[in-house]
Amino acid sequence: MNIHPMWKTYPELAKELNTTLKLMENSVNLKNKEVENAVMSMIHSGGKLLRPAYQLLFSQFGENRESKKAIALAAAIELLHTATLIHDDIVDDSDIRRSLPTIRSQFGNSTAVYAGDYLFVSCFKLLADYSSSLKSIQLNSRSMEKILSGELGQMDNRYNLDMTIDQYLENISGKTAELFSLSCFVGAYESGTSERFAKNCGQIGENIGIAFQIIDDVLDYTQSPEQIGKPVLEDVRQGIYSLPLLYALEEGRRTLLPYLEKGEALTDTETNKIYELVHSFGGVTKAQKLAEKYTQQALKGITKLPETSTDAKNKLFTITQAILARTN
Amino acid sequence: MNIHPMWKTYPELAKELNTTLKLMENSVNLKNKEVENAVMSMIHSGGKLLRPAYQLLFSQFGENRESKKAIALAAAIELLHTATLIHDDIVDDSDIRRSLPTIRSQFGNSTAVYAGDYLFVSCFKLLADYSSSLKSIQLNSRSMEKILSGELGQMDNRYNLDMTIDQYLENISGKTAELFSLSCFVGAYESGTSERFAKNCGQIGENIGIAFQIIDDVLDYTQSPEQIGKPVLEDVRQGIYSLPLLYALEEGRRTLLPYLEKGEALTDTETNKIYELVHSFGGVTKAQKLAEKYTQQALKGITKLPETSTDAKNKLFTITQAILARTN
Repeated sequence: MNIHPMWKTYPELAKELNTTLKLMENSVNLKNKEVENAVMSMIHSGGKLLRPAYQLLFSQFGENRESKKAIALAAAIELLHTATLIHDDIVDDSDIRRSLPTIRSQFGNSTAVYAGDYLFVSCFKLLADYSSSLKSIQLNSRSMEKILSGELGQMDNRYNLDMTIDQYLENISGKTAELFSLSCFVGAYESGTSERFAKNCGQIGENIGIAFQIIDDVLDYTQSPEQIGKPVLEDVRQGIYSLPLLYALEEGRRTLLPYLEKGEALTDTETNKIYELVHSFGGVTKAQKLAEKYTQQALKGITKLPETSTDAKNKLFTITQAILARTN
Repeated sequence: MNIHPMWKTYPELAKELNTTLKLMENSVNLKNKEVENAVMSMIHSGGKLLRPAYQLLFSQFGENRESKKAIALAAAIELLHTATLIHDDIVDDSDIRRSLPTIRSQFGNSTAVYAGDYLFVSCFKLLADYSSSLKSIQLNSRSMEKILSGELGQMDNRYNLDMTIDQYLENISGKTAELFSLSCFVGAYESGTSERFAKNCGQIGENIGIAFQIIDDVLDYTQSPEQIGKPVLEDVRQGIYSLPLLYALEEGRRTLLPYLEKGEALTDTETNKIYELVHSFGGVTKAQKLAEKYTQQALKGITKLPETSTDAKNKLFTITQAILARTN
């Protein structure tokens, strides 16, 4: 069993996720076996397969669910996600992800560029082979466009000490929430629900995605480097300012600015100081509160979903509650 | 008029190529206007639009040609090509292309990664919006997969002084010929020809592409840096050995090796020496001969095509002859 232990309590879902993972593996077939192995390790490195899981669960609301197709679309979305991670690691100069060396740190940026491209293409290949219409490719490519336009937009905001909370939310809406939203929408829509119903699922996914990213950003201030599998506050050094810091800046701008202005030159002692200041200026608590707001909105949306014979609604509720409770 | 003057003699084609270019422009819509402008400049930097031209000409052999669709598919292929160029420039550390600064040299590798990704996605978006079936997306993604697997394979051959002519041909078959082949295949197939006929068109495209790449590699040894718009033998410094050099190595291995082993440390005087040696060991002449062989195969294939009311066959012959005569 390769998938994350969190799925043990959902045996049918776990089975489909395992098949999803296998299909992802089968999609990667490179002459360069070293690179292939690195991509495989990345696929297996304990990602939770959340996007495929949402896709598979939301596909239980339609009348025309086909397991094989649902799994292929789930694999496509996770390949897309993995491709963006490989390219993100180039952009962020990251050496470690999920406690493993990144592709770029093992093989250099060049290989990482092509390896990410390769996974993008594998995604579209799966979509083209398994979709019933051009619709889901249109949706996937529109989402990807939004994600990339967002990523490019975010780069403008590096080292921007005047970034607003709204700008932050817009960024993560593109960067993270879009793919969650897509998973939920496509899951429902391709199983035969109405477009209106699927859009509602997409909205639930959007709220889950925003809460998820805020919590991820909060974890940078609540967990040890070992726990999160990457160095503490590396992002801050690179000028990426997330919600806890932005909230803290509202209260303690004068105290924090002299540190932040050092940018890449920040020492470890100074990052530790920032870490403490963000806590003492209430940035972490406020960010947790906002995450909670989005979590509640997502859960409220889920409770309004119809019942299915597969109990998808209750599963969605419990899983969403569990993954969005990571700060507690 | 934005397109290359070579199309002036073909007014209908020139008109469609202009619309292709416009559609490409309209596909790029980024928040970051600086990056958008750079991508636009790249689109306008005098590329010959050869792949779209072949696609549009081969689409004249089918019975169901729709100009709008043919143009959209042509734009998609050129977007794909542009995306690969942006990423290639990261991998090759290139500062200049077509006498313009590259995206990576203007904005850094990070922006170039996402900008290339964005064009990939724009390509699939166009395909999804204009294809009549999933077929051309399947074909495009399979071709892209082949191209990327080839690029990753080629990276293994860097600084490989034992690389064979066959390995070189395999590399360029993936790197360059695949996209020409795809253009010709998709052009014919999506206009309603039989798959068998379209495959023959794809084969013609493959021969054109191989001849084209060999000639491109020969130009590195016959033109000045100003003429080709990039520094002389930059590739050799980076361990990329092309056909003229590989042929020269067959004759003058002992003379050439001491230079090549210097790799990145090659001085300008030494690259000039390599340049001369490749000529004197007959590498350039032999490479020109092989290009000529593929050119003749392509032209032979074209002469066997059926007549159309649009005179596509003769246009293909003349254009192919013209672009593959660049060494003379």
